[in-house]
Amino acid sequence: MKSGSSFLLAARQCEIAELEQLAHTAELVGVIARLVHALQRERGICNVYLSSSGARFADQRLQQVVECEQAERQLREHFDRLDTAPDRVRNGSRLFRRVAVLLHGLDGLPGLRTRIGRQAVGSRESTAAFVKLVAGLLAVVFEAADSATDPEVSRALVALFNFMQGKEFAGQERALGAAVFASGSSDAAAQQQWRHLVEAQQGCFQVFNDFADPEILRLQQGGTDSELMAQLERLRRMGLAAPALDTNLSQAWYAACTRRIDTMRIVEDMQALHLRQLCERRIAQARAELQDQRAMLEALAAQARDSGTDSPASLGPHLERSVLAMLQEQSRRLQAMGHELDTVRATLDERKVVERAKGLLMAHRDMREDEAYKALRQMAMNQNRRLIEVAQAVLSLADVLPAAKA
Amino acid sequence: MKSGSSFLLAARQCEIAELEQLAHTAELVGVIARLVHALQRERGICNVYLSSSGARFADQRLQQVVECEQAERQLREHFDRLDTAPDRVRNGSRLFRRVAVLLHGLDGLPGLRTRIGRQAVGSRESTAAFVKLVAGLLAVVFEAADSATDPEVSRALVALFNFMQGKEFAGQERALGAAVFASGSSDAAAQQQWRHLVEAQQGCFQVFNDFADPEILRLQQGGTDSELMAQLERLRRMGLAAPALDTNLSQAWYAACTRRIDTMRIVEDMQALHLRQLCERRIAQARAELQDQRAMLEALAAQARDSGTDSPASLGPHLERSVLAMLQEQSRRLQAMGHELDTVRATLDERKVVERAKGLLMAHRDMREDEAYKALRQMAMNQNRRLIEVAQAVLSLADVLPAAKA
Repeated sequence: MKSGSSFLLAARQCEIAELEQLAHTAELVGVIARLVHALQRERGICNVYLSSSGARFADQRLQQVVECEQAERQLREHFDRLDTAPDRVRNGSRLFRRVAVLLHGLDGLPGLRTRIGRQAVGSRESTAAFVKLVAGLLAVVFEAADSATDPEVSRALVALFNFMQGKEFAGQERALGAAVFASGSSDAAAQQQWRHLVEAQQGCFQVFNDFADPEILRLQQGGTDSELMAQLERLRRMGLAAPALDTNLSQAWYAACTRRIDTMRIVEDMQALHLRQLCERRIAQARAELQDQRAMLEALAAQARDSGTDSPASLGPHLERSVLAMLQEQSRRLQAMGHELDTVRATLDERKVVERAKGLLMAHRDMREDEAYKALRQMAMNQNRRLIEVAQAVLSLADVLPAAKA
Repeated sequence: MKSGSSFLLAARQCEIAELEQLAHTAELVGVIARLVHALQRERGICNVYLSSSGARFADQRLQQVVECEQAERQLREHFDRLDTAPDRVRNGSRLFRRVAVLLHGLDGLPGLRTRIGRQAVGSRESTAAFVKLVAGLLAVVFEAADSATDPEVSRALVALFNFMQGKEFAGQERALGAAVFASGSSDAAAQQQWRHLVEAQQGCFQVFNDFADPEILRLQQGGTDSELMAQLERLRRMGLAAPALDTNLSQAWYAACTRRIDTMRIVEDMQALHLRQLCERRIAQARAELQDQRAMLEALAAQARDSGTDSPASLGPHLERSVLAMLQEQSRRLQAMGHELDTVRATLDERKVVERAKGLLMAHRDMREDEAYKALRQMAMNQNRRLIEVAQAVLSLADVLPAAKA
């Protein structure tokens, strides 16, 4: 008959298996980050290429396609190695659906590139296609973060996800700004979207600040180029205020944004490395604890044998206390880990609620994403409530709203 | 190279594996419910036995021990069959720790019974020991409910868990009331605890009402004996108001509570059966969907072969639309399931937060459980806030509180 001790050891072994899976996830996230960065560059280049009617960045575009194809191949190889047998991957049903959607999107990429090369699509359509792809990649990272069971790893994943999402908003801002400057004018819709992208970046980096490792934060802050940021702010102000723009600024804007985003890529890489190291450290730690625990339980069993008893119920009071202390330590640990994990997950849950509320408004009110977000924010300001509360209120109305359009 | 389609199928297979695990969990919960019920009876019997200095229920006690031992054997057999290999059980690290703590508690049961037989423990101590055991059993059910990924199954598990928890509070009330009536007097502390048990029951049955299957609710309401409930309310009023009590009422109280709890046991059994059937239905449904999906993907692949292409990127527009429709249906489903699951899990999360806040107050303020609960409730009333909000506020103070006593 299985004893409590065997379940204690089994619990620890499960913990190790969960951590090993998180280590795989950390690797996957690193590979995704590389492809996201490559696609962000391609998006920006395509924007300039299309806005200049093919006059600029034609060669850079072809070079960047090669870079993207390499990163895509690496990701597909990673997916090929993924064990898709049922029960081998935590959260498999959700994760694999995201991967399926993503792969379908990537399958369409060669066709998109052909059309861009022929200038058969506008810069808006091109940007939208890349935005969708990157969103699909980030959705995989989000799903991975959502399935983490270790609070420390979960913190690191939430920090990295938010950094990646913030960087993506920065990339969208680069593309939008480049198109606006190149066109020589900015209308109200573009300005609204631009403001939304700036605010969305701030929100993401705030969460990153809250959850990132202090050392990475230090490195990130040390690497921030205040002169570059001042230049960006100046250009932003111009793009957001003036209806007529100097088209030559497009290049300066694009270069400044690219420098900023390339610096972000370094921080992102450090964060991904930190995540992998953290997983390894936690695995080593859990393995050592398993060994200690096993040794202790064996010693207890030997003592019980020596004293002529073999049931844990008839252990002497001294041994009894040792087992009890071990169980109590485990319970305390469970409790503390649960609390930490819930705190981290609350951030993910808030994002889910806001995303769903946005989705609902987009479907039922026929709004664009930035309009839906703006509507939620406006409601929150008018009612003096938090964004998450307004989003929850919107969702609770879901049942009474008319059915979504197909 | 793995295609999006293969991940779609893998996602579905994971879903089936998760459902199969839930079916095992449903069985485990049924076995636990049987042992909980047997221990609740033993607790009540022991209370009368000890309070009457062994004059009453001596035979019933021995019979009940046999019943409990059978149920315990059944549970241990279930644990023996449990696959404890890492990664085989979702949430294994937490679940197995709970099982370890529980088995350790069950190991101590024979010793407790010997002491009860010798009347070497008081009724309070005996009750407390049984309460702790039942709490350990319910913790396993809670952990199981917490790991469910299917919204419908999750609803049923949350309903059943809350029903079991409510029934346990009813069982504690039976034990407390029996002891109070048998002793011939009720003091302020006993009355406060009594009131807490009545309120806690109401809270649990409220959640049960919110989440249970309508048919089970109908059966449960149909089976409610209003005469019995009126009698119970009368006895409660007496026990809660009068300092001096007729000791003969102990028997009437015990019998009335037992009738009520035995009726609850029938509802509980129905609910456990419903849960098992639900799991089977969902598994059959997911298997049928998998088959449909596989057939459709094979047909698409055949069509693609016939038209001389083998990459999904070069499918004709018609096939492309079929795949897209399938992916969109999957995304909608993911979204809807996520929303439903979050709604159900919010209930579990609230319970976790309140439990943790109670634990904190118990550790740092040296309060009993009912005192901690009362303190939280009082704060909520004074501040006109929800219990969960006060509990969150208490937890956010955790870092500034002095360390818990060992």
